[in-house]
Amino acid sequence: MQEKIKKIMAELTLEEKASLCSGRDFWTTQPVERLEIPTIMVTDGPHGLRKQAAEADHLGMNTSVPATCFPSGVGLASSWNRELVQKVGVALGEETQTEQVAVLLGPAVNIKRSPLCGRNFEYLSEDPYLSSQIAKHHILGVQSQGVGTSIKHFAANNQEYKRMSVDTIVDERTLREIYLASFETAIKEAKPWTVMCAYNKLNGTYCADNHNLLTEILRDDWGYEGLVVSDWGAEDDRIEGIKAGMDLEMPGNGGINDKKIIQAVKDGNLDEKDLDKVVQRILELVFKGIEKAKDMKYDKQEHDALARRVASECMVLLKNDNKVLPIAKEQKTAVIGELADTPRYQGGGSSHINPTFLHSALDEMKKLGTISFARGYDIDADEPNEEIENEAIKLAKANETVVVFVGLPDRYESEGYDRKHLQMPENQVHLINELSRVNENIVVVLSNGSPIEMPWINNVKGVLEGYLGGQAGGGAVADILYGRVNPSGKLAETFPLKLKHNPSALNYPGKENKVCYNEGLFVGYRYYDAKDIDTLFPFGHGLSYTTFEYKGIEVDKKEIQDTEKVEVTVTVKNTGDVVGKEVIQLYVRDVESSVIRPEKELKEFAKVELVPGEEKKVRFILNNRSFAYYNVDIKDWYVETGDFEILVGSSVVDLPLKTKITVNSTKKINKSFNRNSTFIEIAEHPVGAMVVKNIMENMQKMFGDSDIFDKDAIQEMAGTNTLRSLITFGAMNEEELNGLIQQLNA
Amino acid sequence: MQEKIKKIMAELTLEEKASLCSGRDFWTTQPVERLEIPTIMVTDGPHGLRKQAAEADHLGMNTSVPATCFPSGVGLASSWNRELVQKVGVALGEETQTEQVAVLLGPAVNIKRSPLCGRNFEYLSEDPYLSSQIAKHHILGVQSQGVGTSIKHFAANNQEYKRMSVDTIVDERTLREIYLASFETAIKEAKPWTVMCAYNKLNGTYCADNHNLLTEILRDDWGYEGLVVSDWGAEDDRIEGIKAGMDLEMPGNGGINDKKIIQAVKDGNLDEKDLDKVVQRILELVFKGIEKAKDMKYDKQEHDALARRVASECMVLLKNDNKVLPIAKEQKTAVIGELADTPRYQGGGSSHINPTFLHSALDEMKKLGTISFARGYDIDADEPNEEIENEAIKLAKANETVVVFVGLPDRYESEGYDRKHLQMPENQVHLINELSRVNENIVVVLSNGSPIEMPWINNVKGVLEGYLGGQAGGGAVADILYGRVNPSGKLAETFPLKLKHNPSALNYPGKENKVCYNEGLFVGYRYYDAKDIDTLFPFGHGLSYTTFEYKGIEVDKKEIQDTEKVEVTVTVKNTGDVVGKEVIQLYVRDVESSVIRPEKELKEFAKVELVPGEEKKVRFILNNRSFAYYNVDIKDWYVETGDFEILVGSSVVDLPLKTKITVNSTKKINKSFNRNSTFIEIAEHPVGAMVVKNIMENMQKMFGDSDIFDKDAIQEMAGTNTLRSLITFGAMNEEELNGLIQQLNA
Repeated sequence: MQEKIKKIMAELTLEEKASLCSGRDFWTTQPVERLEIPTIMVTDGPHGLRKQAAEADHLGMNTSVPATCFPSGVGLASSWNRELVQKVGVALGEETQTEQVAVLLGPAVNIKRSPLCGRNFEYLSEDPYLSSQIAKHHILGVQSQGVGTSIKHFAANNQEYKRMSVDTIVDERTLREIYLASFETAIKEAKPWTVMCAYNKLNGTYCADNHNLLTEILRDDWGYEGLVVSDWGAEDDRIEGIKAGMDLEMPGNGGINDKKIIQAVKDGNLDEKDLDKVVQRILELVFKGIEKAKDMKYDKQEHDALARRVASECMVLLKNDNKVLPIAKEQKTAVIGELADTPRYQGGGSSHINPTFLHSALDEMKKLGTISFARGYDIDADEPNEEIENEAIKLAKANETVVVFVGLPDRYESEGYDRKHLQMPENQVHLINELSRVNENIVVVLSNGSPIEMPWINNVKGVLEGYLGGQAGGGAVADILYGRVNPSGKLAETFPLKLKHNPSALNYPGKENKVCYNEGLFVGYRYYDAKDIDTLFPFGHGLSYTTFEYKGIEVDKKEIQDTEKVEVTVTVKNTGDVVGKEVIQLYVRDVESSVIRPEKELKEFAKVELVPGEEKKVRFILNNRSFAYYNVDIKDWYVETGDFEILVGSSVVDLPLKTKITVNSTKKINKSFNRNSTFIEIAEHPVGAMVVKNIMENMQKMFGDSDIFDKDAIQEMAGTNTLRSLITFGAMNEEELNGLIQQLNA
Repeated sequence: MQEKIKKIMAELTLEEKASLCSGRDFWTTQPVERLEIPTIMVTDGPHGLRKQAAEADHLGMNTSVPATCFPSGVGLASSWNRELVQKVGVALGEETQTEQVAVLLGPAVNIKRSPLCGRNFEYLSEDPYLSSQIAKHHILGVQSQGVGTSIKHFAANNQEYKRMSVDTIVDERTLREIYLASFETAIKEAKPWTVMCAYNKLNGTYCADNHNLLTEILRDDWGYEGLVVSDWGAEDDRIEGIKAGMDLEMPGNGGINDKKIIQAVKDGNLDEKDLDKVVQRILELVFKGIEKAKDMKYDKQEHDALARRVASECMVLLKNDNKVLPIAKEQKTAVIGELADTPRYQGGGSSHINPTFLHSALDEMKKLGTISFARGYDIDADEPNEEIENEAIKLAKANETVVVFVGLPDRYESEGYDRKHLQMPENQVHLINELSRVNENIVVVLSNGSPIEMPWINNVKGVLEGYLGGQAGGGAVADILYGRVNPSGKLAETFPLKLKHNPSALNYPGKENKVCYNEGLFVGYRYYDAKDIDTLFPFGHGLSYTTFEYKGIEVDKKEIQDTEKVEVTVTVKNTGDVVGKEVIQLYVRDVESSVIRPEKELKEFAKVELVPGEEKKVRFILNNRSFAYYNVDIKDWYVETGDFEILVGSSVVDLPLKTKITVNSTKKINKSFNRNSTFIEIAEHPVGAMVVKNIMENMQKMFGDSDIFDKDAIQEMAGTNTLRSLITFGAMNEEELNGLIQQLNA
């Protein structure tokens, strides 16, 4: 292929090159017939294929061909199941091939900075490790079928509000450790064919024009060899974009930018070599994307069944007091809530799928149990409707158990705008509270793409977070409610008690086209941890119908170099009565650090299935990155020599296993000393230590007679004095001080 | 005087000028006998005079002459009583005169960013308005006696940890609205003779070398005409300091910097005109400071009595369930706790006074009530001592009421280092809990300079925050406990439930010699408000032995220009049985703002005394600054046109009175539009509004057929699109868009 591309490159005119740089229309690339450069099609994802059935319109909004609608991103991440997500990817790849599409536009991996972001339902997690692992396996699955993906939206596009103009201000370390880390592993290890650059500005420059982001970090640092495509309409200045490494502009722009490119090359404002790099990458994608299996087909039933199995692993059992779940087949159960009958199973916007089938929880529950149904509320309204509610209350009285289906209507969350609060519609809240007055056994099933406040939590016994479960989500809910599937999802995001508790609350969504990520590294659980703020449900939380015991944490080495790996082994046992899957989470804590670090961070996880009484050893391999922070001085990841705690358990607040290892740095960071170095700092140097000892003894003598400072305090206070105070307080002259500093730096 | 100085300036040699720029020794300025330039003395404050009795030593630590020790800063601010603080100032001024000292080094007005700051006991408040008002009246009082003050530490010196080397990183608006505002009003309206620059760096430059701080802001913007003195040892680079406007370096440095100054002038590295400005200001201070009343005396008894009265207004009754306080004379009362007998009445460090008298609460209570005493704990230990504790428990059993004196030992808080937690010694906590098991009527009296956690709060009925009450604090406590004085202090700082809840928790005290004030404007109650985090005791809280009713809020205008003033009147009535003072607090809330603002901010307060049944109208005048924020684009305070709520009550969380006024801006801020302006932004322009109406109608039509976006959402989403999307989505070509932008900017 490289031969062919080389030949074409040599023959392309400047005008043809320019024409290749943007789409032919909304969904396809520009062909050049003279040189047999074909066109390829890309379509929206990420959890299903949205291929427009008719010709592309200006907005790409026409009805799409049917495709399997899998659970949306938040659900997939909640499975914490790499293999399962990869299977979903394979299925998506098959459908993409079948429809002769070259690239599926996903996965979407932006970090959930605020629970309000309208697109959180598509995104994976508040944690970059979990997010990047899930994304990696999504991509590996799709691309195993010979079609491409587009990891998006690169980068720091964590809100919908003013997404076309907002300038995201985020410090370099936070960017690397949180926002970019969510992309990094997936890009390095799964090699997505394309990376989609985001709409917003990042630290002053549009992502589409951002050389630091698209070239220095993505290509030079991470070694990415694929193509960068603009989010639809994200290109701001085409010439700057080409210089920055933004390859393919989408959608087509009617040739406006072609002319600018030609002119810029002619005027000398754009080096044709920069243009060639872009064209080269576009050609590589086109020729890779055009190679399709002929007559590919997929089995819609099979994919629908997969979607059901997947959905049941994506749901999270948040609460289950007195084992109100599972429900027995013969148990008289009232199913209440319009969402049981008319499911909300996916989010609004570019990811909206035309599903191959659609199963409601109501229909699926009818097949499994003894149920009756009432609507409970009007999904299109916010105000309670007494008549509809009374019917539901009557039904609740007449049944042993009540399952209430509630959640967020479409209008409450979507691509394109953010939520303003975490509340459900008032009529739904009212209904739950009214039902709880007449029946003790209330189970709430939620359909929503992002966290909500639950002022009614103490009035119900069970809560199943169903998220947006895809076309087969109704069946999955039924499976869990009746115990055909033991729930095993875990939250990939924190549910705060109150909106204002969330880490971004002071700076979201920003003002005057600027949003400052002042909370820094403290996103999601990192924040609640560091602030000691209680949550409604913590990160990693999720219940099961069985119980698990954690025991026997071991490491294969107590001390390693930062270039070595360490193996951590724990044992998990199913101590309950039914088969179940457990997500084992491993967090690392830097015991002491010279930089600000989160209290602990997720660095590994595994999901294992255990039959009752069974126990398994689970092995984790930790490496440099498990202990490192991003050091902005050396522009690299850096492990500081010292002790690290390894904590293992079933959620960020339930970590029964703990051990410690020592990691020794092999990277030297040179410290230099000056007149404003503190005594504590120079005490790390052998000469400095002697000087400090001397000073401390003298200070004790001098202050010892004084009553104005507590004696115990003098040492602590003195330690943070600077070397130049030795002159101020008459202990040295300037020459002596300069001599000392020279010695320290020698 | 100016004539004389002019003459001297003309005669001074370069060497003499240089010599004047730093002190002769630890406490005095350099004289020049040839020209009859005398020396003046400055000494530590702020709540009493610390004049060294003997010759100054290198550290300024020798025993000082006796002086009245008033309550420390936190207490004075808790009085919320401008007149009272001014009286303290007058008394301090008298003592300063008496001792032939020219300048008292205070008040200290740094904002309490973290409750851990070791020097919080000296500082006034977490709120800049309250802080600057109290400071202003402190200065007015002292300086009315013909001696000077030194408002300190300028600026952003909000921690002791690494205070000599830490670089405080704070954004311009936060600096202006919070950290500098605490100085600004006091400097502008009370004109302190000197301003003391802080040890730390501010945004990369040492305060002592910071031209922006010491010249542009302090002098050019605020019109300050006095002298800047370095904190002792704060000067980093003497030449840069002179250029920046740092006048007097203290303490003396043995001539090292004199030589550097001379050399710099000779080498052309320092303009002699810059040096002259500094020398001129030093001479002005010296000649102002030397003019002393002869044979000035003050009445020690009288000042001691004043200190007692002041202290009783500085204490805050935090809790008083079932009216456990006041105690009746005949009521059998156990006084428990070493601190009742050996008071902790002031903090450690440069403010440490040698008091003229010292009254313990135990002695003073003996005069007023029926008491017996037990030590309860060893103040020098942290571990409980069973024997000492058992004695106390026995005593508690035998008495009707128990008053426990606890708090922080000297070693727990001091200038020079920060606290690491908010805990009291374990033995004291243990004691309270043990006592509460045997007696229901526990009253805790606290001696501490900054907030503590109170895990025992539900086990006691009363809590009196005594702070560090000065030499007569013991008498003041007795007065309050026995109802001779009705408590009227209110917290000038928030008591958080947990340390980690405090606003600076994620970035305190910083790492690697840098501390980032990432919480921005959200300091103190501004943070707890915006984050909806419960506190132990909120800002402004304080109980009384009587009750007050708030009613009838009125404004004299419902709408004003930002250049006008508005008068707010409220009525407060004493609805209880005893005479009492109430602090009436007025907060302003910007209902809607284009910048991020705190939910509400203190903008006025008043303290009134009312006899039972009496009511008073209280008038507040609000001005431009009551509504303004600091606009970094125009580098000025700016009131955005719109509605403002005025909230009045007895604490930040108890504001029963509310009204609203409209303020119209008279300052125009020009907005310009470009291709990345959003539709919402251009809709403010008449032409833009028409365009947007058109676009919205078209979008509704186009999206109306689609199922992928909720219809209600389209408008909201579209509003944040940028103008250039009109090209992307085919609604305009480039020329049309440019034409539109021209029209908008015309």
